[in-house]
Amino acid sequence: MKSYLDCIPCFFEQALRAGRIATNDEQLLKQLMDELGAKLQKISLDSTPPETGRLIYRMVKEITGNSDPYRELKHKSTREALALYPALQRTIKKANDSLLTAIRIAIAGNIIDFGVSATFDINTTIKESLLRDFAIFDYSIFKDNLKKAEHILYIGDNAGETVFDRLLIEQLNKPVTYVVREVPVINDATTEDAIMAGIDKVAKIVSSGSDAPGTIPAICSDGFRKMLDRAEFVIAKGQGNYEGLSNEKRSIFFLLVAKCRIIANDLGVSSGDIVLKGINV
Amino acid sequence: MKSYLDCIPCFFEQALRAGRIATNDEQLLKQLMDELGAKLQKISLDSTPPETGRLIYRMVKEITGNSDPYRELKHKSTREALALYPALQRTIKKANDSLLTAIRIAIAGNIIDFGVSATFDINTTIKESLLRDFAIFDYSIFKDNLKKAEHILYIGDNAGETVFDRLLIEQLNKPVTYVVREVPVINDATTEDAIMAGIDKVAKIVSSGSDAPGTIPAICSDGFRKMLDRAEFVIAKGQGNYEGLSNEKRSIFFLLVAKCRIIANDLGVSSGDIVLKGINV
Repeated sequence: MKSYLDCIPCFFEQALRAGRIATNDEQLLKQLMDELGAKLQKISLDSTPPETGRLIYRMVKEITGNSDPYRELKHKSTREALALYPALQRTIKKANDSLLTAIRIAIAGNIIDFGVSATFDINTTIKESLLRDFAIFDYSIFKDNLKKAEHILYIGDNAGETVFDRLLIEQLNKPVTYVVREVPVINDATTEDAIMAGIDKVAKIVSSGSDAPGTIPAICSDGFRKMLDRAEFVIAKGQGNYEGLSNEKRSIFFLLVAKCRIIANDLGVSSGDIVLKGINV
Repeated sequence: MKSYLDCIPCFFEQALRAGRIATNDEQLLKQLMDELGAKLQKISLDSTPPETGRLIYRMVKEITGNSDPYRELKHKSTREALALYPALQRTIKKANDSLLTAIRIAIAGNIIDFGVSATFDINTTIKESLLRDFAIFDYSIFKDNLKKAEHILYIGDNAGETVFDRLLIEQLNKPVTYVVREVPVINDATTEDAIMAGIDKVAKIVSSGSDAPGTIPAICSDGFRKMLDRAEFVIAKGQGNYEGLSNEKRSIFFLLVAKCRIIANDLGVSSGDIVLKGINV
């Protein structure tokens, strides 16, 4: 997905939000705004939002000297999600359609995103996600393709959400490779976060080789790109991965909450809608 | 009022909103964003938001070549407000406290502001304003000072809102000088807009000599500054005038809706609250 003009004010909001997690120094935060402003003319609307996100979070790290401002928040999200894990596992087990319920819960987990908003309520979101209609619902083709696949590539998004991904992986009944970011960026899951969520018990964890808050193949490692090319069945979670992968030529299933108006427009849905969308399927 | 870090993303939103009124050319709009970005390091947080607003709307004019993008919208707002004028005049006449009702209506008119939001519903706002509590209510000192004054300086804000100001001016029962912006900036009222609203029937119209979307004495004309120094009783409408005048040493009564969180915080009220606040009174 390309960037839109409306993403520009939002880039400054994102930078300010991340900067404030890293420091209280108003002068450093103003410097962050100024440097982002100065770089704006080099940010093309043809680039995807996570490319700019990558630039922003690199600037936050450089200016504040804090290389992982979201570390504590990520750990907290993961602990809170792990506390919900046993009850959600029972909910899935008891459901008429356990796979669909696990998908709904994995999408609800996508609300854990400090990149988009500082506040959310995961319990309310889960309850809503179990009941609400999908705005895009490519579930039958998802099931068909899943049946044929011998291996799944599952591209994760945020820490904490990883616990909900684990619940879905348990329902896929296939070997899964779970993809995380190479280094910390916002609250996106790294290997450390995936292990803390217990993903290592249900999948093989690999890094995309990238520090962008989304999966942009061109800036991922060769190893990951080959993996993506060869994968039989790909699940990509969240907005950042949608933004980075929505123009790929291969089949991908996106599971996400459309958290911003711009992505909702791009998908042809409303803000807040839940989406199970397959491309090239 | 100084600027806050949170004003920065909002400056880009304002520029984009005004730019879009002036042009559909995405390249020009991107240029506008880029140029604002490049200027950001020269924008001090010690400056007031309308100083930056002035810079933004000058850039919009230069880049798009449109010197008055809001002209049609201003005329439309004024026509719509004039259509409400007779009924609102009757409401005020019938009220137990006609002055207070006129103040409430004048504040409701402050919701007409394309600088802050592109959408609003003036009818709903008026009904709400007639019933709701003030978050700051310096009404008795307002009445006391009004009684003593022989002349009123009334600093207007937006076109359309001018019609509601006219209703309040009719209740003041004193000679009034009504202050407008020197040239078009956003949807702020100029002499043309004030005349279209019939202000010339109830007050003498003068210009502040400024093209900022708010009254910043340092960049107003000498004539206006003298008028402000000598005025017995000053009413200033809206956020832009509050931002520009809140640190003045003289007595001023501000009538406004706190439309943004930052100004609400500065005033110690909640976003959406209505305010009748006197300073140095």
